[in-house]
Amino acid sequence: MLDSAVVSYSRSTKIVWQRGYGHQIFDVDGRAYLDFLSGCGALNYGHNDPDMKAALLDYISGDNIAMGLDFFFDAKEAFMKAFQVSILAPRNLDYRLQFPGPTGTNAVEAAIKIARKFTGKSNVISFTNGYHGCTLGALALTGNQNYRTGSHALLGASHRLPFDGYVQGLDSAAYLARLLDDPSSGIDNVAAVVFECVQGEGGLNVASACWAQEIVRICHQRGILVIVDDIQAGCGRTGSFFSFEELGIAPDIVTLSKSISGFGIPFALTLIRPDVDIWNPGEHTGTFRGNAHACVTGRVACEKFWSDGTTADRTARLSGIVTDHLDDFAASFGLHRKGRGLLQGLDVGTSETARAIQAQCLTNGLLLECCGPQGEVVKLMPPLTIPGDALIAGLGVIGDAITAACARANVRPHQRPVAAPQPKPLSSVQ
Amino acid sequence: MLDSAVVSYSRSTKIVWQRGYGHQIFDVDGRAYLDFLSGCGALNYGHNDPDMKAALLDYISGDNIAMGLDFFFDAKEAFMKAFQVSILAPRNLDYRLQFPGPTGTNAVEAAIKIARKFTGKSNVISFTNGYHGCTLGALALTGNQNYRTGSHALLGASHRLPFDGYVQGLDSAAYLARLLDDPSSGIDNVAAVVFECVQGEGGLNVASACWAQEIVRICHQRGILVIVDDIQAGCGRTGSFFSFEELGIAPDIVTLSKSISGFGIPFALTLIRPDVDIWNPGEHTGTFRGNAHACVTGRVACEKFWSDGTTADRTARLSGIVTDHLDDFAASFGLHRKGRGLLQGLDVGTSETARAIQAQCLTNGLLLECCGPQGEVVKLMPPLTIPGDALIAGLGVIGDAITAACARANVRPHQRPVAAPQPKPLSSVQ
Amino acid sequence: MLDSAVVSYSRSTKIVWQRGYGHQIFDVDGRAYLDFLSGCGALNYGHNDPDMKAALLDYISGDNIAMGLDFFFDAKEAFMKAFQVSILAPRNLDYRLQFPGPTGTNAVEAAIKIARKFTGKSNVISFTNGYHGCTLGALALTGNQNYRTGSHALLGASHRLPFDGYVQGLDSAAYLARLLDDPSSGIDNVAAVVFECVQGEGGLNVASACWAQEIVRICHQRGILVIVDDIQAGCGRTGSFFSFEELGIAPDIVTLSKSISGFGIPFALTLIRPDVDIWNPGEHTGTFRGNAHACVTGRVACEKFWSDGTTADRTARLSGIVTDHLDDFAASFGLHRKGRGLLQGLDVGTSETARAIQAQCLTNGLLLECCGPQGEVVKLMPPLTIPGDALIAGLGVIGDAITAACARANVRPHQRPVAAPQPKPLSSVQ
Amino acid sequence: MLDSAVVSYSRSTKIVWQRGYGHQIFDVDGRAYLDFLSGCGALNYGHNDPDMKAALLDYISGDNIAMGLDFFFDAKEAFMKAFQVSILAPRNLDYRLQFPGPTGTNAVEAAIKIARKFTGKSNVISFTNGYHGCTLGALALTGNQNYRTGSHALLGASHRLPFDGYVQGLDSAAYLARLLDDPSSGIDNVAAVVFECVQGEGGLNVASACWAQEIVRICHQRGILVIVDDIQAGCGRTGSFFSFEELGIAPDIVTLSKSISGFGIPFALTLIRPDVDIWNPGEHTGTFRGNAHACVTGRVACEKFWSDGTTADRTARLSGIVTDHLDDFAASFGLHRKGRGLLQGLDVGTSETARAIQAQCLTNGLLLECCGPQGEVVKLMPPLTIPGDALIAGLGVIGDAITAACARANVRPHQRPVAAPQPKPLSSVQ
Repeated sequence: MLDSAVVSYSRSTKIVWQRGYGHQIFDVDGRAYLDFLSGCGALNYGHNDPDMKAALLDYISGDNIAMGLDFFFDAKEAFMKAFQVSILAPRNLDYRLQFPGPTGTNAVEAAIKIARKFTGKSNVISFTNGYHGCTLGALALTGNQNYRTGSHALLGASHRLPFDGYVQGLDSAAYLARLLDDPSSGIDNVAAVVFECVQGEGGLNVASACWAQEIVRICHQRGILVIVDDIQAGCGRTGSFFSFEELGIAPDIVTLSKSISGFGIPFALTLIRPDVDIWNPGEHTGTFRGNAHACVTGRVACEKFWSDGTTADRTARLSGIVTDHLDDFAASFGLHRKGRGLLQGLDVGTSETARAIQAQCLTNGLLLECCGPQGEVVKLMPPLTIPGDALIAGLGVIGDAITAACARANVRPHQRPVAAPQPKPLSSVQ
Repeated sequence: MLDSAVVSYSRSTKIVWQRGYGHQIFDVDGRAYLDFLSGCGALNYGHNDPDMKAALLDYISGDNIAMGLDFFFDAKEAFMKAFQVSILAPRNLDYRLQFPGPTGTNAVEAAIKIARKFTGKSNVISFTNGYHGCTLGALALTGNQNYRTGSHALLGASHRLPFDGYVQGLDSAAYLARLLDDPSSGIDNVAAVVFECVQGEGGLNVASACWAQEIVRICHQRGILVIVDDIQAGCGRTGSFFSFEELGIAPDIVTLSKSISGFGIPFALTLIRPDVDIWNPGEHTGTFRGNAHACVTGRVACEKFWSDGTTADRTARLSGIVTDHLDDFAASFGLHRKGRGLLQGLDVGTSETARAIQAQCLTNGLLLECCGPQGEVVKLMPPLTIPGDALIAGLGVIGDAITAACARANVRPHQRPVAAPQPKPLSSVQ
Repeated sequence: MLDSAVVSYSRSTKIVWQRGYGHQIFDVDGRAYLDFLSGCGALNYGHNDPDMKAALLDYISGDNIAMGLDFFFDAKEAFMKAFQVSILAPRNLDYRLQFPGPTGTNAVEAAIKIARKFTGKSNVISFTNGYHGCTLGALALTGNQNYRTGSHALLGASHRLPFDGYVQGLDSAAYLARLLDDPSSGIDNVAAVVFECVQGEGGLNVASACWAQEIVRICHQRGILVIVDDIQAGCGRTGSFFSFEELGIAPDIVTLSKSISGFGIPFALTLIRPDVDIWNPGEHTGTFRGNAHACVTGRVACEKFWSDGTTADRTARLSGIVTDHLDDFAASFGLHRKGRGLLQGLDVGTSETARAIQAQCLTNGLLLECCGPQGEVVKLMPPLTIPGDALIAGLGVIGDAITAACARANVRPHQRPVAAPQPKPLSSVQ
Repeated sequence: MLDSAVVSYSRSTKIVWQRGYGHQIFDVDGRAYLDFLSGCGALNYGHNDPDMKAALLDYISGDNIAMGLDFFFDAKEAFMKAFQVSILAPRNLDYRLQFPGPTGTNAVEAAIKIARKFTGKSNVISFTNGYHGCTLGALALTGNQNYRTGSHALLGASHRLPFDGYVQGLDSAAYLARLLDDPSSGIDNVAAVVFECVQGEGGLNVASACWAQEIVRICHQRGILVIVDDIQAGCGRTGSFFSFEELGIAPDIVTLSKSISGFGIPFALTLIRPDVDIWNPGEHTGTFRGNAHACVTGRVACEKFWSDGTTADRTARLSGIVTDHLDDFAASFGLHRKGRGLLQGLDVGTSETARAIQAQCLTNGLLLECCGPQGEVVKLMPPLTIPGDALIAGLGVIGDAITAACARANVRPHQRPVAAPQPKPLSSVQ
C-alpha cells in the first residue's frame, strides 16, 4: 500500500482503468464503460481525441520542448493565437492570458492575488457551496468543510454570502449591495467577488442571469472586481464556451483549467482584463506555467471545436435530451433536477441513495459521480462529443438505477405511478 | 500582446524556443544552445530522453487514459511500484505517496496541511531565503518579497528563522531549540519546520549535515515534523536522489516536483511518513492528481536512472568538474562559489554583473539563470546527463562571460592576476 | 494643541465640562445642561450619585487600596457579594465573575478567548451593525469600518451575519441554522455567536425575543456558545438589569462595562457559565483588573438600585414616556422610532439632519449624541434616575430641534399637519 | 466561589488586602507588609500619596465629572498641561497625547494601529520575552505562551526577533538590518518595531544603549516606526521618567499606563509623534478614554514628582543600594542580577526557588513577585518613594529568604562561603 490515505475516487471502486476513447473508458480487462464523469470536467472532448492525439504525437516525436517556463516558445504562441481567434475575438472579449501553473487552484490563487493588488484591498467575497480549490488562498473561498477543517489553516480575508437561491426569498445580490453600502455592515475592504455560474461541486446550483448581472453591476459601481471561476462550468460544459455567456456578463477575471488543454493534460489560464493586468514580472510564478504538450492539444481543441458554433449548438441539443430525461425522473420520483447544459443532475435526497445509484450505474457500465453538500446530487457530465444514442443509452442506465434505488429507499412517486422512465427516441442529434 | 505582464523569462530574451534534445535546446531558427537551466530543474535528464519519449508515444498511441483523477489506473500503479523499488526501498525509506496536484506549490500546501492536521498545531517554521511556491499557504513560507507584497495576502501562521550560515557565528539550530524551549520566546504552537537542503532560488545556500541533523533532532524531541522541500534540489540534482541523503537525515515529509516526471511534464509528490498520513479521503484534492503521462515518463526515469548508483556517481564526478572551475573563477575574481552537486553557482556581487554574464552566455549559446536575494548569483543547472565535454565547454563560455563582466565592472582580482580561467581537460567523465 | 487627532466628541463642541450632578452636567461657566448622553451609557445612575460618592470618599479617606491586581481585597469581595445577591441570585443566573481589565473591549476579548478555548474552535459569528470594541479581537466583531480600515489590521476568524431585521423578510436565525448544518456553506469551526440585544452604536436595532431564543436554541444544539455583549444595553438601560432578560434567554457569557461601576469609573466584567470557566491562572491578565474604587461604587450601585424591582419599574414608566413622545415625533415627521427602554432614538434619515438636531439641542441646553451606520439616528440615553419632569422637558427640547431641523430639511409631515410635538403631562412618574 | 478560574495572584496567598500607605500595604487584620510589588508598577509613588489623595477627594467632593469621554473637560486639560510642562518640555519631546482607553493593552493596540495606518504596512516586529498585553493585537506581540495558546486566536502580522543579548554573540540589531535589506529574508512590509527598554515580565532583560540606538537608526533609515512600550519600565521606574532617556533615543510612539495616574487608577496614554498622528476622529475609541479621576491624580503626580530632578536623583541612589545588595546576593549564591533602576531582580535558576523565596518574604512581611520565562527571576519593584531604611530592611528580608531557599535547593556558593548577606548601612539616602 503506497497510496496516501487521501485518495477518494479509488475508494468507490477497485476497477483499474487503462484506456479511453471518446465517451468510453476501459478497464484493464478490456471492459468498456460509458464515461459520464469526463475526468471531472477535464475531458469535455472525450478521451484521446484523434486530432489532438495526432498533433501531440507529432510534437513529441519531433523532439519539441515539453516545458518552456514562461519563455516564448512555438507551441505557446500558437495556442495563444488560437485562443484569441477562436474564443476571445468572436465573443468580443479582451483579456490578457496568464499561465499561472497548470491547475485550477493555481488559476484561482493568481486571480485573487491580482485582484487584491489592483484594488489595494484584501477581502474576497465568495458564496455558499462554492468550490475553488485546495491551496490556502483558494481554500478560503471554498465552502466544503471537508477540505477546510483538520488542517488548522489560517483562512482569511474572505467573506461568504448566500449564493443565488440559497435562501428562499432572499435576493442575495441586493443583500450584497446593502452590505457594501452600509458602513457598519462589517463587510468592507472588498477587492473582488468570485463565483461559479454553475456550482459543480456544490450541487449544480445555477446562478440566474438576473442575479449575475446585478452582482456585476453592484461590483462595478463600487470598484470591485468580478471573478468567474469557470474551471468546471467553462470550456463548453454548459453550452457556450464560457458559462457566463448565457448570463450576459463579462467578468474582469476568469479562471480556466480542466478541459482547457482538451486532452486531460494539466493546464490552466487566468484571463485578466488588460488594465487590471498590473503584475510585476514574475510576481506569480511556478515551474510548469508553460506546459507545451497542453499548448499543443489546447490549440487543436480551440481550432477544432470552437472555430464556429457547432459545438455549442450540439451541446444545446444534447442538454435538452438530458433535461427531458431528468425532468421525467424527477417527476416520477419526486426528485429535483439541477444544473445547466451538460452539467446537470438529480438531487436524490440523501448521499446513501446517490451512492447506491452511482454503484448500480457502475455495475451496469456507466461511470458518474455525486456532488452537493451531502453528496446527494447524482451528477451527469458526459463528454460534449458523446453520440446522441450513447447519451440516451446512458440515461437509460441511470433511470434504471434511480428506479431501483428509489424503490429500495421506499420513495413514493409523488405525482403519478409510472414505469421506469424510458429513454427517448433521438432524431436530430447524432 | 496576449501574454500577461506577469511573464519574466521572456523578458530576458526574445528568442522563441522550439526543440530540445539532451543538453541542447534549439530556437525556431534552429540555433542550438547549451541548456544550463534545465527547465529550472524540471529537466534533470535533459530534453526528450529517448526512452521516456518512446514510452510516452507508445502510451498515447495506444489510447491509454491521459488523466485518471485518483482512481486506480495502470500507469499510476506502475509508477508507484517503480518509485518504491528504485527510490524508496534501496534507501530504506518508508513513505506514503500523495499525488497532491502536479505542481510543487501543491505538494508544499499538502505537506503543511497534513503536518498541521497531524500535530494539531498551526505554526510552520521556514527560513530566510527559502522558496516554496506561490499559492498562499506556500507563499507564507517563501522569503522573496517580490512574490509576497502587492498581493495584500494574509500570510499567516509562519515564523521565519535564519538559515544555516545566514548570520555569521549564529548556530541557528541552537537558536531554534532555545526559542522552542523558552515559553516566552513568542514562538509556539509549532507543527513543522520546512527547509531546502540547497536553497535553489535563495542563492544556493547549503545546509550543513550537522545543522540539518540538529534541526531534525530538535524537532523530533519536541513532536515537530520536519519537511524537506526537495522540489528543486531533489531528483538527483545534488548527486543522490534526495538532497537530504548526504546530510544523514530522514524527513517526515518530503515534497517533490519538477524532475519527478523526468520529461518536463507537470507532476508532484508529497511523501508522508506512514503514521503521519492521517488524511481523510479527499481532504486535499485537485483534478490533475493523476497525470498519467507523467506517470509513464516518471516510471521510466526511476527505472533508467535510479536502478543502481550510476547516475549518482556520474553526477558526483561532473559536480567535481563544476566545483573546480567555479573555484578557479572565484579565486581569480574574488568571487564566492555556492551550492552543491549540479546545483552550483557563483556569487558575483550584484545583479547587474550577474545579468551581464547571463546575457553574454546567451549570446555565446548558453542558457542559464541567476538567483539569490538580489539576483546576484549566476546559477548552473546543466542536465545530469550532460556529456563531460559539453559541460566543460559550457564552463568555458561562462568563464569568458565572467572575465568580460568582471573586467567591465572593474573588479580587481584580489589574489593574483590571472588570465581568463581555462576549461580543464576532462578524462574520467564522458 | 496636545490632544491627538483621534478625538471625536470634542470636535462637536468647544464646551469645557466641569461638574455633574444627577441628570445635569455643567460647563466651566456654570451653565447646566440636561445630560441625555450619560457618558455614553457609563452614567446610568447620573453624575456623582451621593451614596456612591460618600462611599468612595470614605474609602479613599481611609487609605484603602486603590488597586489590588487580582489579589483578594476587601472591596472586591464586597462587590462580588453584592453582585451575587442583588443581580445574579434573584435572576437565577449562575456565572463566574472575571475582571478582565476595566474596559468593555477587554471584556469582549476575554469572552471570545474563553469561548475559543472552551470549544477548541476559532470562528466567532457577529452581526451587521454590531459594536464590540476597538482592540483587534473585538474589532474583528465590530461592524463600523471607520474603526476597522486604515489600520491594516489582520482581522480574522469572524463571520458576519445579518442582525434580526437587517434584511427584509429574511429569518436570519434560520439562515444561521442553515449555514451551520450545510457542510459546504463555508461557515464552520464556530466557537461562539456574539450579539447585542439592542445595538447601541449600530442604530438602536432591537433583537426580538423570538430571534434571540432561536439563536440560543440553534447554538446550544450545536455546541456553540452564546455571548451577549451587554456593555451598552445592560446595567438597567433597557429596563431589567440585563438587556436579555426580556428576551427570555440565558447567555453562556455576558460582557458588562460602562455603568457597572455606577459612577463612571473604568470597570468591566465578563460573566462566564461555571463549566465554561476553564481558564488557566493568569491566562488573561492586565494590571487594572482589580480597580478598587470601582468595586466600592459598583457595590453601592448593586445595593441601592437593584435590591428590588424599583429601578426596573421606574425605567419602564420612563421608557413609556420616551416611546410616546418619539412615536409622536415619528408620526409628525415621517420618521422612525428605534430602540428599547431608555435606549431609544429617532432615525431622522441623514446624518446632517441628526447633527443639526444635536447641535440645536446643545444650544438649548441638552446633550445627546447620534448613532447608526451613517449617524442618522438621534439617540436618547438619559440617566435612569432622571426625574420625570426633566425627562419631559428634555423631550420638549428635542421635539423643538426636530421641528426646526425637519423644517429646514424640507421634510413633509406624511400623515397629518401637526404643530411641534408637545411634551405630555406627567402623572404617574416622578 | 464567584471568582473566575483566571485569577493568579490570589492563588499565591489567601491574604485579603485592605489598606495601603506609601510603601506599606495592610491586610484586613491590620498586619503591615513592605510592598515591593507596587501594584505591578502601577503604584510607583506608593499607596495613597497624600497630595493626590487630597486632590482626588476635593475633586469628588465638588461633584466634578468622573468621566468625560473625549470631550474637553477641566481635569483633562489640566493634566495635559502638567504633562507637557513637567514631562515633555524639559526633555525636548514633542508628542501628541492619545487617551486610548485606560489600560496598557489599549495603549499598545492604539500604537500599532496608528503605526500601520501611517506606514501603510502591517508587520510589527517584537522581541523574545516581550510583554505587551492580552487583547489580540497586543497579544500577537507578547511572547509568553501562557497568554497565547489555548485561545485559538489568530495572531498575525507580527515577527519575533531575539532581544538584545538573547542569543550569545548575536548582534540582533545588525540581524534586523540584514533581514530588512535582504529582499528574500521573508521579513517585509514592516510598519514598526516595538520593544521594552527593560522587559518587566520577560525577566528584567535590559536593552543596551548601543542596541537601542542601532534599532532606531536602522528603522528610521527605512521608514519604520519605533514604539517603546514604557508601561512597566516608564513613569520613573528606571530612574528617568521614560526608560529610554538613558538609552539616548527618541521613539516615534510611546505607550504609558500603570503609574501614569500615580494613584493606581486605570489610565493610559499613547504618545505619538505629531506628524504620525494622522488618526481620523474617533478611529480608535472607547468609553473610558477620559478618566477624570486619573487626570486629577496624574496631574498631581507630574507636578509633585517631576517638576525637577529630585525624583530621578533619588531613584538613582536607591537603585544603587539595590544593585549593591543584589550583586552581593548574586556573588554569594552564584546567581545573576538583572534589570535596571528600581526594576531589578535576581535570576535564581528555577521557578521553584523563586517561589520559595517569594513565599518566605511574604511570611516575613514583604510582598514581591517573580517574573521571567519560567518565573525564575525574583523581582523587586519597591515604590520610588520608599524610605532608604525601609528599602534596606526589605533587602534584608529578601537576603534571608534567598539564603534559606538556596540552602534548601542545595545551591553551592560558587565564589566564597559567606554568611547571609547583610543590609548595608545607609547614609546619603533618606
